Amino acid sequence: MKNSNNNISNKTNPVPLQGLGVTISPLGVGGTIAAISTAPGTGGIAVIRISGAEAIKYCNAIFQPSNKAIQLTEQEANTVIHGNIIDTKNEIIDDVLVTIFRAPHSYTGEDIIEISCHGSVYIQKKILQLIINQGCSLAEPGEFTQRAFLNGKMDLSQAEAVADLIASDTAASHRMAMNQMRGGFSDELDRLRSRLLDFVSLVELELDFSEEDVEFADRTQLKDLSAEIEDVITKLSNSFNIGNAIKKGIPVALVGETNVGKSTLLNFLLNEDKAIVSEIHGTTRDSIEDLVSLGGITFRFIDTAGIRNTKDKIESMGIERTYQKIEQASIVLWIVDCTQISEHIEWLTDRIAKRAEGKKVILIFNKIDKILEEEKEVLSQLFDQFEGERLYISAKNRINTGELEKVLIKAAQLPEIQPGDIVVNNIRHYEALQKALTAIRNVSEGLESGLTGDFLSQDIRECMHFLGEITGQISNNEILGNIFGKFCIGK
Amino acid sequence: MKNSNNNISNKTNPVPLQGLGVTISPLGVGGTIAAISTAPGTGGIAVIRISGAEAIKYCNAIFQPSNKAIQLTEQEANTVIHGNIIDTKNEIIDDVLVTIFRAPHSYTGEDIIEISCHGSVYIQKKILQLIINQGCSLAEPGEFTQRAFLNGKMDLSQAEAVADLIASDTAASHRMAMNQMRGGFSDELDRLRSRLLDFVSLVELELDFSEEDVEFADRTQLKDLSAEIEDVITKLSNSFNIGNAIKKGIPVALVGETNVGKSTLLNFLLNEDKAIVSEIHGTTRDSIEDLVSLGGITFRFIDTAGIRNTKDKIESMGIERTYQKIEQASIVLWIVDCTQISEHIEWLTDRIAKRAEGKKVILIFNKIDKILEEEKEVLSQLFDQFEGERLYISAKNRINTGELEKVLIKAAQLPEIQPGDIVVNNIRHYEALQKALTAIRNVSEGLESGLTGDFLSQDIRECMHFLGEITGQISNNEILGNIFGKFCIGK
Repeated sequence: MKNSNNNISNKTNPVPLQGLGVTISPLGVGGTIAAISTAPGTGGIAVIRISGAEAIKYCNAIFQPSNKAIQLTEQEANTVIHGNIIDTKNEIIDDVLVTIFRAPHSYTGEDIIEISCHGSVYIQKKILQLIINQGCSLAEPGEFTQRAFLNGKMDLSQAEAVADLIASDTAASHRMAMNQMRGGFSDELDRLRSRLLDFVSLVELELDFSEEDVEFADRTQLKDLSAEIEDVITKLSNSFNIGNAIKKGIPVALVGETNVGKSTLLNFLLNEDKAIVSEIHGTTRDSIEDLVSLGGITFRFIDTAGIRNTKDKIESMGIERTYQKIEQASIVLWIVDCTQISEHIEWLTDRIAKRAEGKKVILIFNKIDKILEEEKEVLSQLFDQFEGERLYISAKNRINTGELEKVLIKAAQLPEIQPGDIVVNNIRHYEALQKALTAIRNVSEGLESGLTGDFLSQDIRECMHFLGEITGQISNNEILGNIFGKFCIGK
Repeated sequence: MKNSNNNISNKTNPVPLQGLGVTISPLGVGGTIAAISTAPGTGGIAVIRISGAEAIKYCNAIFQPSNKAIQLTEQEANTVIHGNIIDTKNEIIDDVLVTIFRAPHSYTGEDIIEISCHGSVYIQKKILQLIINQGCSLAEPGEFTQRAFLNGKMDLSQAEAVADLIASDTAASHRMAMNQMRGGFSDELDRLRSRLLDFVSLVELELDFSEEDVEFADRTQLKDLSAEIEDVITKLSNSFNIGNAIKKGIPVALVGETNVGKSTLLNFLLNEDKAIVSEIHGTTRDSIEDLVSLGGITFRFIDTAGIRNTKDKIESMGIERTYQKIEQASIVLWIVDCTQISEHIEWLTDRIAKRAEGKKVILIFNKIDKILEEEKEVLSQLFDQFEGERLYISAKNRINTGELEKVLIKAAQLPEIQPGDIVVNNIRHYEALQKALTAIRNVSEGLESGLTGDFLSQDIRECMHFLGEITGQISNNEILGNIFGKFCIGK
């Protein structure tokens, strides 16, 4: 055998496995960078971070330790020194603590200096300016984390999780980001890649012995392996629905004819006068979205333009958008006005049912306080075709609105994420998984149709390529720019 | 002699020198406290600070070092440890750096832990909550610095300078606060107190030998000493004008008759539409103030209600306030409308001159573009009595407004503060100095009128008392509450 498992991955691949355009050099990603890493504004203290080969030198030029015996450049890693930041005229700018980290045992993998100063905006800027004057560059958004990635301290999905972690605002989104940052997802992807590598090595081994017409890889075994990998990718890919709902809120569309009280209900749910409430039909022309947390779950409520059977044929663009919103939502609140049941009920039921397939639709009879008890029965019968949950409320007079919240929370129950659970919450990862899924399905089909090894190999390697995009084995400047450009400065 | 210099200060004093109601106990100011010390909001990183006897214990309960061999409780001071913050269910909340400081070599003089975490608001709150759950208290505003004061790490004026330093937003205010925080002012006050102590010891020595009718203290020498001390206190006290102008901006009052364009000029100076500009006389009823930095100097512009000789006798309350504003200002911009010179010029000149005594008054002829060149001469002659600077502008059409800015900057020139200069900028210090000044003047007068030693002693000790209030040798809960209550939380 010419190949061992170890160097199979070094073969020329149909899709390159190495970085596309990014030069990774652990010892010199760029110059030395600095930024204010704490939240902008005035605080008790603020932290300025410097990373790179010259970090210690730059800090040393503007820092006088209180203990004259101490030399910053000689200082041990992971220690803190008290002293003054001084400007070129030897004037004291601030009384600070300097923490020193040495490559490779630091966040970025480079030498890092953290200056903890008084949290005056003036002082923060002044110290940063002094460092920049030494020849240091201002860090781009996410540049510290980008360096951590480029220096192999974390993979790309972990780096992305850092930004998610910082943005996390609920227990669920925090846990999801933490799981991802700690590498659970990366490990899962590594396991997948390793199985694919086994797979492709078997297939490619055959190619080397093609003249002898042997089949090293048992086709039935390969089919099983392919199905198994497809299964794992499918599960990961499916978790995106949950992940996205946690990250962005569960989308709830409020739909119904014009003037049934959608905006009033939205205002109640948002607990503020967000949407414009008026009695003019069609007031809500543009969709309004807002996040609200009910029972610990984040909902993204989407108000929509009222559906109106205008002249029985024309539907305006706003109404078309309403249909799109229904498709994007997980839960649809279909609101009808008890006092004015449209003559188009059947037409509407049909319309909404068609668009809301597979979603939880809750039928809400609004303005319930405006009708008699016996009318309720008649009303209900009008909607006999509708099989989902129904609720009688008054949004304006807060009748049964508490019940509505309960129903919503129940309808929104997501499986609880446990520490260690892998949930995909990033559209970039989702898209890569979808492509990997297509590739692995091609493998399955190829096996079914007796495709030759070289074609199979190409599909397997394509699957590996897309999984590699997630962890950053495959990356390019554009991808990196997109990812780190969304970070805050100083991280 | 029964007394030596050393224990003279332990005598029973007419004004107590010891703290009034504050128990100072360096080893246990209170329980252990914690707070988020960085600016509020989301950042790359955030710092949570714990101070007190249990700081290390509390952190240890929620922290797992990455290196299992490390024990936080055994860790050396001024070192940084990497690890995870975990909750009671062992779930990882964040990947953090923990810095350890040990009493008495820390900011507060107590054991301090600083947790540097990811700057998500959720994580910051969650970690703080975990520490609080251990039995830690939430720190009050300024409580860390208050402890530094109570534990003798700094005196009260230095503690106050910490807040000033954090609030500083110009080079001058920063330098002033830094000088004060570094103890320049405290040293000066200590020198004063030490001279007063020499003084009072001589006088009180006589009291002990009163039966023998000796005069240890040469009365001429005492008079010289008293005059010298008075001189130092006066200088310190006088520096408050500069200090306050640097800290709060140089007050510039814009005055003039109604509808001469004061608000338009203010808008130009503030570079935004702050004041309401209208053609209705008396639009500006309440005084509007705003800070603007011109040529590195902070100005506090004060718009005023137009002065109007209403029915030649009634002056409204708004106009009375205008007079008060003139008295508070350092610079007065007296604005007249070229096109409408009031028949009350003499009355007004008189009014403004009376109120603006000792201030820089700049006479501004506005709407200069609305009159002919030859009219200017006539105009100027009308104000012959006025001796100050005069300027011809159009606020609306930006004629000569650049010149106005230059004149303002020139008029505002404060003596530049040098590193080490002592400038009083705190109203509390100013008031204490004023009281100390009264006391030392009483001493001088007492010496003049041959007052007996026991009365002299009382006045000298009173002077010492008020100086002691500044540095905090004399303090009480109310004073401390006032001072530290204005701090941000976490400092």
